[in-house]
Amino acid sequence: MEMKKFMSDYSCRIYYEDVDAGGICYHSKYLNFCERARSEFFFSQNASPIQDDYHFVVKKIQANFHHPARFGEEIVINTYIKEYKSVSITLFQEIKNRDGLVLFDMDILLVCLQSEKIARIPTAFQEIFGV
Amino acid sequence: MEMKKFMSDYSCRIYYEDVDAGGICYHSKYLNFCERARSEFFFSQNASPIQDDYHFVVKKIQANFHHPARFGEEIVINTYIKEYKSVSITLFQEIKNRDGLVLFDMDILLVCLQSEKIARIPTAFQEIFGV
Amino acid sequence: MEMKKFMSDYSCRIYYEDVDAGGICYHSKYLNFCERARSEFFFSQNASPIQDDYHFVVKKIQANFHHPARFGEEIVINTYIKEYKSVSITLFQEIKNRDGLVLFDMDILLVCLQSEKIARIPTAFQEIFGV
Amino acid sequence: MEMKKFMSDYSCRIYYEDVDAGGICYHSKYLNFCERARSEFFFSQNASPIQDDYHFVVKKIQANFHHPARFGEEIVINTYIKEYKSVSITLFQEIKNRDGLVLFDMDILLVCLQSEKIARIPTAFQEIFGV
Repeated sequence: MEMKKFMSDYSCRIYYEDVDAGGICYHSKYLNFCERARSEFFFSQNASPIQDDYHFVVKKIQANFHHPARFGEEIVINTYIKEYKSVSITLFQEIKNRDGLVLFDMDILLVCLQSEKIARIPTAFQEIFGV
Repeated sequence: MEMKKFMSDYSCRIYYEDVDAGGICYHSKYLNFCERARSEFFFSQNASPIQDDYHFVVKKIQANFHHPARFGEEIVINTYIKEYKSVSITLFQEIKNRDGLVLFDMDILLVCLQSEKIARIPTAFQEIFGV
Repeated sequence: MEMKKFMSDYSCRIYYEDVDAGGICYHSKYLNFCERARSEFFFSQNASPIQDDYHFVVKKIQANFHHPARFGEEIVINTYIKEYKSVSITLFQEIKNRDGLVLFDMDILLVCLQSEKIARIPTAFQEIFGV
Repeated sequence: MEMKKFMSDYSCRIYYEDVDAGGICYHSKYLNFCERARSEFFFSQNASPIQDDYHFVVKKIQANFHHPARFGEEIVINTYIKEYKSVSITLFQEIKNRDGLVLFDMDILLVCLQSEKIARIPTAFQEIFGV
C-alpha cells in the first residue's frame, strides 16, 4: 500500500556529543535522531517498539544530507509512512531546523522480526501505525 | 565558596543507541546525559556554553553507578553547584528514574578555558550560574 | 570517471558501545566504521583527511543491511572508488565478518569542501586517491 | 588483595566520531576506550567478557582528565589490576599518547554479576585475570 501518511514529529537538540570538528553534526547521528523519533512514536502511545519478541530492523537506507546541523541547534524530525507491506514498512523521515530548512531526509525500509526471523507485522503494531 | 545550590533539571529518554546487550544503558552514556543537562542550562537562558572562546572542560569525575537505566525509561538529571572558584566549578549531578530512584551520581570538576588556556570564569558565565 | 578501484581495507571489533539490546550492532554504527576506514586510508599514507581547510562531507548514502554484526565479532571494511569527479567522489564500502559474509554495503557520495564551500578536490588528495 | 599487576595494553585512534568542536576528544569517550581495552583483554585470550551469564558492571569511577586527545592521534590504554576481591575488581587504566604523555587515568570498580545479581567472580574469569 503506497501512501504518505504523517506519523509523528519529534524534536531534539544538537549537543557536544553529536558534533565533530567544526561544530557540525557527525553524519551518522542523523540516523540516531530518526531512530529516536521512531521509538518515541511507540512510547507516545504507551507502547514499546519491542513487543512479544517482535521488533523492526533496518534493511535499507537512502539518505540525503542537505545542510549541516550545528551545535546548540534544535531540530525536528518528521516521520511519514510511505509504503506498508505485510512484513515491512518504508518510512520517509525528514529533519528540519527551526527555520524550516530541510537538513536531512531519508527513505528507510524496516523489516519486522520475531526473535531473529522475518515475521508478519503483528496486529498490535498495525494498530499503532494506524494502517 | 562551598554550597549546594540547585542549578537545573533536565529529562531525557533511554533509546536503542544508549543501551548495550541486555537493554541496560552503557555506562559512559550517563556522562553524556549530564553534559546535555549542563549545556541545556545555558541554552535555557538563551546563552551558549561557548562564549567569546570561553568554555569549560572536564578535569575530574567521581561517579557512582547505583542502578541501571533501561531501554525506554525516562530519566531526570538534577544539577547542583557544589563549589565555585575563580577558574573552576564543581557540580553535583544526580540521575533519577521516574520513581525517584537514584541511578547515578557524580561530582564533576570543570575548569574554564579561554581558547586552550585556563582562565577566570568571565562575568557572563557568573551571571548565568547566579553566583 | 567510473571504475571500481580498490582503496583500502580496515578491521575493527564490535564492542559493548556498538551493540544494542540483543547484542546486535546498532545500525548507524556501520556508517561510523566506514568513516574510520576512510580516515585511516589517509592516516596510513601519513596524510590527514583535513588539509589546508579542505575536507569531505557526506552528501548521499545508499546502504543495505544484510546481516547483523554481533558483540565481539571482528569485521573488515573494504573500500573502493566507484566514481571520481572534480568536486566529488563516490565510494563503495562493504563490511564483512571473518567468514567473508557481507554484513553491510553502501554507496557513499562525498563532496569536497574548502572551509564550507564546494571546491575542486586538491592535488594533494588526488595523489592520495591515486586517480 | 592490593597490588598493581599489569594486565594489558590496547591501542586505538581518535576518529571524527570521537571529537567535538575544536577537534578535542569528547570526555566520555575515554571511558569507552578503556572499556574496549577491558573487553579486548578477554578476546585476546580467546575468551568473552560474558560467560555463562557472568559479566562485570561498572560501580564506581574516579577519573582525571590531564590533556586532551586530538583528532587523528593514536593512543594507548594501559590496564592494571589494583585490587582483587571475591565479587569485585578495581582496575587502574591510563591513556597515553604516542609521546608517552598521560592524557587520562582512572580507578574503576567493577562488580561481578550473574544475570543481574552480585556473584563471586567465577574460576574462568580468575584464570583470565591470572589472580
